[in-house]
Amino acid sequence: MTHAFKNCSNLLGTGASRGLGLQIVESLVTGGFSPGKIIATARNPDGATELQIVCLSNSNCVRLCCLGVTCQQSIERAASEVEQLVQEEGLNCLINNAGINVVTNLETVTADKMLENVHTNSVAPLMITKAMLPLLKRAAAKGTGKGMGIHRAAVINMTSLLGSIELALNMVTRCLAVDLEADGILCMALHPGWVRIDMGGPEAPLSPEESISCVLSVIGGLTEKDHGSFLHYTGEQLPR
Amino acid sequence: MTHAFKNCSNLLGTGASRGLGLQIVESLVTGGFSPGKIIATARNPDGATELQIVCLSNSNCVRLCCLGVTCQQSIERAASEVEQLVQEEGLNCLINNAGINVVTNLETVTADKMLENVHTNSVAPLMITKAMLPLLKRAAAKGTGKGMGIHRAAVINMTSLLGSIELALNMVTRCLAVDLEADGILCMALHPGWVRIDMGGPEAPLSPEESISCVLSVIGGLTEKDHGSFLHYTGEQLPR
Ligand SMILES: NC(=O)c1ccc[n+]([C@@H]2O[C@H](COP(=O)([O-])OP(=O)(O)OC[C@H]3O[C@@H](n4cnc5c(N)ncnc54)[C@H](OP(=O)(O)O)[C@@H]3O)[C@@H](O)[C@H]2O)c1
Ligand SMILES: NC(=O)c1ccc[n+]([C@@H]2O[C@H](COP(=O)([O-])OP(=O)(O)OC[C@H]3O[C@@H](n4cnc5c(N)ncnc54)[C@H](OP(=O)(O)O)[C@@H]3O)[C@@H](O)[C@H]2O)c1
Repeated sequence: MTHAFKNCSNLLGTGASRGLGLQIVESLVTGGFSPGKIIATARNPDGATELQIVCLSNSNCVRLCCLGVTCQQSIERAASEVEQLVQEEGLNCLINNAGINVVTNLETVTADKMLENVHTNSVAPLMITKAMLPLLKRAAAKGTGKGMGIHRAAVINMTSLLGSIELALNMVTRCLAVDLEADGILCMALHPGWVRIDMGGPEAPLSPEESISCVLSVIGGLTEKDHGSFLHYTGEQLPR
Repeated sequence: MTHAFKNCSNLLGTGASRGLGLQIVESLVTGGFSPGKIIATARNPDGATELQIVCLSNSNCVRLCCLGVTCQQSIERAASEVEQLVQEEGLNCLINNAGINVVTNLETVTADKMLENVHTNSVAPLMITKAMLPLLKRAAAKGTGKGMGIHRAAVINMTSLLGSIELALNMVTRCLAVDLEADGILCMALHPGWVRIDMGGPEAPLSPEESISCVLSVIGGLTEKDHGSFLHYTGEQLPR
C-alpha cells in the first residue's frame, strides 16, 4: 500500500497529536515509508505524548513541528521551519487533517462557535496551503513524470459530511483546485469514513488503522483525474 | 403585487441603508403596503440619509432601527426594540438582506476577510433569526389560516450564488428550516438576480425595482411547499 508513496519525498500532516492525524503518521512509519521526511504537526507538541514517542523512535524520517491552524503567526512560523526541513526538494504532500466537530443546535449555537468551526475546518486549510505554496510549487516543478499526484505535489483536505457549514471546505477545495492547476499541484477533498475515535464515537464502523490504510492508498494513487474531486476513503466519488 | 402582503402585519428587513434593502422598503411603501409596520434596520442609521427620508415621509408605517448584524449585542438590543414595536402581533416576515461581497483571490485572501464574509452572510442570519424567534413564533401562532407563509411567519435569507463559502447560507437555511418547522415558521433562501447596484455592478441586467418587485411577489406567494427551498427571484427553484 505504501508502495504508492515511493516518489513522495516530503509529506506534512496537520493535527497529528491524536486521532486520524496520529494514525496517518503511524501507518506511514510502520508501512515502511522511508524516502524523505514526514512532518507531523500539532498545536501543542509538548502535550502530544504518543506522537512524541513515534517521532523519537523514527527520528530518521519523522519530524515534529508546532502548528496551531487558526493562528496566522503559527502558520508562517511553521512554513519557514518546513522550508528548512525540505529545502530544494519542496513539499510533495500536504494533508490538512486538523479539524473540530462543534456539536450544537439552535438553542446552544453562538456566532463564535460557528466561526471557530469554519475557521478550523475550512479557512485554515486555505491559509496553510497558501503559506506552503512556494514549497508545493517547488516540488511540483521538480517532480519527475507528467500529470499530477504525490510524485509532484498534492493538497489533501480531510473533510467530513457532518453538519452544514463544514461543506464550505469542499467549495474551498474546488476554488483552490482552479488556482493550483497551472502549477501542477493536485488538490482534492477526502472523507475518511466514520472512525472509532473521539470524533467518530464508539459505534463508528471503522478502526483508525482501517480508515487510514484506505486513505493512504487513495492518496498514493491520485492522478490528474482526481484534481478538484471529493472522494470517499474507498476511492468512490462523493456528491459535492 | 403587494396585495399578497395583506395578511402580513409586521416585516423586518436588514441592511436597508442602500441597495436591495432600501429598495425593499421603498417598493413596499409605494406599493401601498399598509397594515402593521415595516421595520427597516441599518447598522448606521445616522448615515442612511435616503432611508431616513423614506421613514420620515411614511412615519405611519415605517420604523428605523439600528442593527449591526455581526454584533450580538446589537442583535439583542434590536430584538427588544422590535418586541416593543410589534407587541402581541409578533413578527410575520424577517428578511435577512444585509450582506457583503468580499472580492478576493489566493494572493489577497486572509483568514479575517473570509471569516467576516461568513459571519455577515451566513452566521448573522442564523443569530438574528434566533433572537427574533419568540416574535416569529408569536406571529405564527396567531396567524389565521393553516399552512405556512407570511400570513403566519417566514424567514427569508437573501443569498448570492457568488464565491464559495457563501453557499454555507443555503445550508444554514436548510438546517433552520428543520428547526422551525414545528412552529409553523417558513424558512427559505432567495436569490435576487444580478442587480445594478454597488454589489451587482453597472452591467447587471436588472434594475433594483425590477428585482425587488419580483422578490416581493415571490415572498408574498410563499406557501409550505417552499419551506427549506432556494428560489430565484423569478420563483424558479435553484440547485442547492
Ligand atoms: N473520526 C471520524 O469519524 C471522522 C469522520 C469524518 C471526517 N473526519 C475528519 O478527519 C479529520 C481528523 O478527525 P479525527 O477524528 O482524527 O479528530 P480528533 O480525534 O478530534 O482529532 C482532531 C485533531 O485536530 C487537531 N486540531 C483541532 N483544532 C486544531 C487547531 N486549531 N490547531 C491545530 N490542531 C488542531 C487536534 O489537536 P489537539 O489534540 O491539540 O486538540 C487533533 O490532533 C477532521 O478534519 C475530521 O473532520 C473524521
Ligand atoms: N446586487 C446583486 O446583484 C445581488 C446579487 C445576488 C445576491 N445579492 C444579495 O442581496 C443582498 C443585498 O445586496 P445589495 O446588492 O443590496 O448589497 P449592497 O448594495 O452592497 O448593500 C449591502 C447592505 O448590507 C448592509 N450591511 C453589510 N454589512 C452589514 C453589517 N455588518 N451590519 C448591518 N448591515 C450590513 C449594508 O449596510 P451599510 O450601508 O452600512 O454598508 C447595506 O445596507 C446581499 O445579501 C447580497 O448577497 C445581491
